Amino acid sequence: MSARYLLPYAPDAIGGLPAGLDALVWDGDGPLPGDEKLAGVEFFCLPYMRHAAALSVIPRLPALKVVQTLTAGMDDVLPHVPAGVAACNARGLHDASTAELAVTLILASLRGIPHFTRLQDQGRWSQEFHQSLADKRVLILGYGSIGRALDARLRPFECDVVRVARRARPEEEVHGAHELAALLPSADVVVLLTPLTPESRHLVDAGFLSRMKDGALLVNVARGPVVDTEALLKELTMQRLRAALDVTEPEPLPADHPLWLAPGVLITPHVGGPSSAFLPRAKRILREQILRYERGEPFGDLS
Amino acid sequence: MSARYLLPYAPDAIGGLPAGLDALVWDGDGPLPGDEKLAGVEFFCLPYMRHAAALSVIPRLPALKVVQTLTAGMDDVLPHVPAGVAACNARGLHDASTAELAVTLILASLRGIPHFTRLQDQGRWSQEFHQSLADKRVLILGYGSIGRALDARLRPFECDVVRVARRARPEEEVHGAHELAALLPSADVVVLLTPLTPESRHLVDAGFLSRMKDGALLVNVARGPVVDTEALLKELTMQRLRAALDVTEPEPLPADHPLWLAPGVLITPHVGGPSSAFLPRAKRILREQILRYERGEPFGDLS
Repeated sequence: MSARYLLPYAPDAIGGLPAGLDALVWDGDGPLPGDEKLAGVEFFCLPYMRHAAALSVIPRLPALKVVQTLTAGMDDVLPHVPAGVAACNARGLHDASTAELAVTLILASLRGIPHFTRLQDQGRWSQEFHQSLADKRVLILGYGSIGRALDARLRPFECDVVRVARRARPEEEVHGAHELAALLPSADVVVLLTPLTPESRHLVDAGFLSRMKDGALLVNVARGPVVDTEALLKELTMQRLRAALDVTEPEPLPADHPLWLAPGVLITPHVGGPSSAFLPRAKRILREQILRYERGEPFGDLS
Repeated sequence: MSARYLLPYAPDAIGGLPAGLDALVWDGDGPLPGDEKLAGVEFFCLPYMRHAAALSVIPRLPALKVVQTLTAGMDDVLPHVPAGVAACNARGLHDASTAELAVTLILASLRGIPHFTRLQDQGRWSQEFHQSLADKRVLILGYGSIGRALDARLRPFECDVVRVARRARPEEEVHGAHELAALLPSADVVVLLTPLTPESRHLVDAGFLSRMKDGALLVNVARGPVVDTEALLKELTMQRLRAALDVTEPEPLPADHPLWLAPGVLITPHVGGPSSAFLPRAKRILREQILRYERGEPFGDLS
């Protein structure tokens, strides 16, 4: 009666799986299968963008062995994963989409797309000089798989890329976090790609921001709480720094929050992941993880 | 009394030129040197974005041998260049800036930046799926130096690039114009980079547009008259196609033109060239051309 897998897509839609895979399908929106059906679920893939509903399902799965997310960040999931259950993120799934959004935010901010959109709505043609990414120095803070994907996308733009991660990795020209304070003042663009951890919470505080050069652009495609919003608001209000934020704290940003209308800020509503790039890559990762589980092979447990 | 060069920047600002180069400086804005000073000018570099004023100077230069522009397109200059005078464009100068703007327009359109800017102005957080450049097919129409620069920038985005030029160049995987009709229906994005010539005027007419797939994006960073604006307006109004236009016909676009408010269009006011990437590259090209002229070497005459 019960099934081993609880998945957001039918096995046929995922493709490439053994015939007759013992799976229940739940997209996080419709009714959840009854407890007797859930009793044997060992592998639960959380439906994308339905985390809150999905996390409440975990205690109803007595046979659970693996929680698989379709997100890169696990900060909101890990506290809900019982001891002895493997927690697997979707490393690589969002590389293309999130790195692409980071480039989009950089280019749109530098080349004035929000400004020109507003002029367009007023029917105003006003040719002006704007900043180009060419000749700029971009500092990538957090150099995992999304950082590498961003680096590859930036490289042909005639800009200089500086890489910073927790630990230095000289073989990839990655600086360690202890060099950050010295590297910040020369960066024209700083892109945040760090996971949210106790150490990275409010990493971008007043001191961090004060080291950024006048007119520099801060891009956050990581997690909102990596930035101290109050400290950023001060710099934006003074028009000393600019920002492009796909994530904010709080999130969603309330309608009356002053960040919406701060000068020099572009805000997108956490859309690094949700794009047409998502579904084919989600299915590919899910297929690989299920096949690995079927073969009894180990896979990255982040719990 | 008279000088051989009439330049928009002082030789010292250009740098790397022979000491005491015999040059007058005119930026297109201030007063023009008197006729007796202009009598010996052989090499005239038109000030950037001051073409109209600069073209009227040409008849006042009896010793003129070279007209150098700081633009890639020469369509508006060539009719004003007397017989026997070399006309040189600034091939390569705008590669970085224009290719970058093309990527900016593609990414901003696909990822919904104009839409999110409008939501931001209303304080609205509305997470939605948008298109990604990943997995898309981009057709570049016109494959010169800007086309090559665009291609290099697109390549890491996990998209497929199709190249079309007047003549096929199999060694660069460039298709000939005769294959265009067959290639258009499979393109998700079509980027126009053709110079404006009698053959390319209204090349993008109702027939061209009708071959583009539903929902495809037309990007014009070439010249406005390459597109039949009326035909494009029809497709936009039906919401069958989308567009991102840095150039328009007419240009500047009048405040009451229906294109401003057509659905699915992003308009920037011909800012492919004017960006921070311009000045260092303009000086480099001008230096190279002056040194070539000083040495009596030939350089690309496009007249």
